[in-house]
Amino acid sequence: MKSIKVFAPATVANVSCGFDAMGFALESLGDQMVFTQTEDNGVKISKIEGANLPYDVDKNVVGVVAKQMLEDSNANFGLDIQIFKNFKPGSGLGSSAASASGTAFAVNTLLDNKYNKLELTQFAMQGEVTACGSAIADNVAACLYGGFILVRSYNPLDIVSIPTPGELIATVIHPQIEIKTADSRQVVPETIPVKTAVAQWANVGGLISGLHTKDFNLIGRSLVDYVAEPKRKELIPHFDKVKQSALNSGVLGVGISGSGPTIFALSKGKNIAHKVAKAMDEVYVNSGIGYNIYVSRISNKGVHLV
Amino acid sequence: MKSIKVFAPATVANVSCGFDAMGFALESLGDQMVFTQTEDNGVKISKIEGANLPYDVDKNVVGVVAKQMLEDSNANFGLDIQIFKNFKPGSGLGSSAASASGTAFAVNTLLDNKYNKLELTQFAMQGEVTACGSAIADNVAACLYGGFILVRSYNPLDIVSIPTPGELIATVIHPQIEIKTADSRQVVPETIPVKTAVAQWANVGGLISGLHTKDFNLIGRSLVDYVAEPKRKELIPHFDKVKQSALNSGVLGVGISGSGPTIFALSKGKNIAHKVAKAMDEVYVNSGIGYNIYVSRISNKGVHLV
Repeated sequence: MKSIKVFAPATVANVSCGFDAMGFALESLGDQMVFTQTEDNGVKISKIEGANLPYDVDKNVVGVVAKQMLEDSNANFGLDIQIFKNFKPGSGLGSSAASASGTAFAVNTLLDNKYNKLELTQFAMQGEVTACGSAIADNVAACLYGGFILVRSYNPLDIVSIPTPGELIATVIHPQIEIKTADSRQVVPETIPVKTAVAQWANVGGLISGLHTKDFNLIGRSLVDYVAEPKRKELIPHFDKVKQSALNSGVLGVGISGSGPTIFALSKGKNIAHKVAKAMDEVYVNSGIGYNIYVSRISNKGVHLV
Repeated sequence: MKSIKVFAPATVANVSCGFDAMGFALESLGDQMVFTQTEDNGVKISKIEGANLPYDVDKNVVGVVAKQMLEDSNANFGLDIQIFKNFKPGSGLGSSAASASGTAFAVNTLLDNKYNKLELTQFAMQGEVTACGSAIADNVAACLYGGFILVRSYNPLDIVSIPTPGELIATVIHPQIEIKTADSRQVVPETIPVKTAVAQWANVGGLISGLHTKDFNLIGRSLVDYVAEPKRKELIPHFDKVKQSALNSGVLGVGISGSGPTIFALSKGKNIAHKVAKAMDEVYVNSGIGYNIYVSRISNKGVHLV
């Protein structure tokens, strides 16, 4: 009976202009999970470290995804799963997506890669249904594919990998406050002027083109969100100050990671990314709010064996 | 005193999902214009063939753009201009943009290339103000830059050239009916659901990515317009039939060129593009409506000297 360990990266969804359509994976922040085959059929979660999550396999996305895949594939084995969370649920960094995608990848490995990445994305999306009530793809696809991804369509599901310049470095700050996903959804308007939408998709085009051509200036100019950020930033203490101080440090762009409260920034090169981290730190250090700051390359492979 | 002749291509603006933000230039359809320096200052239009356009230099976009550039540059010469239109104003193929951009390019050539392409775009946009009342950039930028372009931003003006696979061939049909630009604008809703906007910008991302990677299938899947086409197609006789018969012929995608009535299709390779032309022809041949069909590569250089 085999045992494997996977690393499932944290992910930044939306990416400013790419609201509800884009995401990218971090290289050096993520969860680890150990999957051990068992002779008994059935799935058991035997250990969870780093977060207060349910052991009940029908309530934990890891269990939901694993059970579904074992059933779909008529597997002749069961699983014992250990979960080591390195970043917090509710951060806006795709905690449930890391759990779901890490599980999909691991179970697929134990099934001799029966499924392709698109199918794994669909299994992982069922984990997102358990976690947040809807089958969103941006975090799980970023986690599974690595790099930047675009969810071009949901019906049929169509994930496009976008090349990621190696010099692109993310700085993220996670203020330890809770934003309810429902609140975060509710502040985004249901309709927008077509003019606003045009400005937004022009930036999506610019961002995608800039990623393809390694045009960092274009990437920076395109990292603008006219739709969610103006509303959601009100839920994140000191957002404007963090953004301004990051921009003063030479960052390409700054935005809200997923539905927040994490704020992400993208820089060309590590030096600037670390300057941005320092600038973010200076905004938050006396705020009375706990926080974590991470500097990471963009993962070029997504979830993988360790 | 010098005399030069320019070819200014017809252009397809919007390009389905890229409503109000994208455009491309045709290689083999466009206007020719002859610009001859004169010792007298001032601009004179001495010949117009192929269309019923004003000779008054303050009412013809050619005159407006030329005068403006000569003034801005303190030129010590005047111009005699001959215009040979090869496609009709009001077609949705950027007739005024070809006039304006051809003029901007030609005058700049006679000014020893004093201005860069972005500045020429800004001059040509003033021609669009004369022609249609607003300084739209998608047609003029496509005409000046060639290939596919993205208008990432108007303020400041930011034009992004998108690489164009050589195998991409356009088929366009121009039904000779008049659609007033005002009507065409009016049918597009002023606001749209955010969900619709997300689906649209996901397709913009897919189209731009497909053009970069020569992924023709992705280009085809992304050529969808949820915003303008559902309304504007009602103004174009047989639109659905033309679209369906083109799709049956293996086209990548079909949409409305600019604000219509021209319908454009993009195919991989000339064989399919000609099959599409035949299919379009079969829809219109007994319609009682006059029409022209053109098959053309995408121009890789835009307006140029001949």
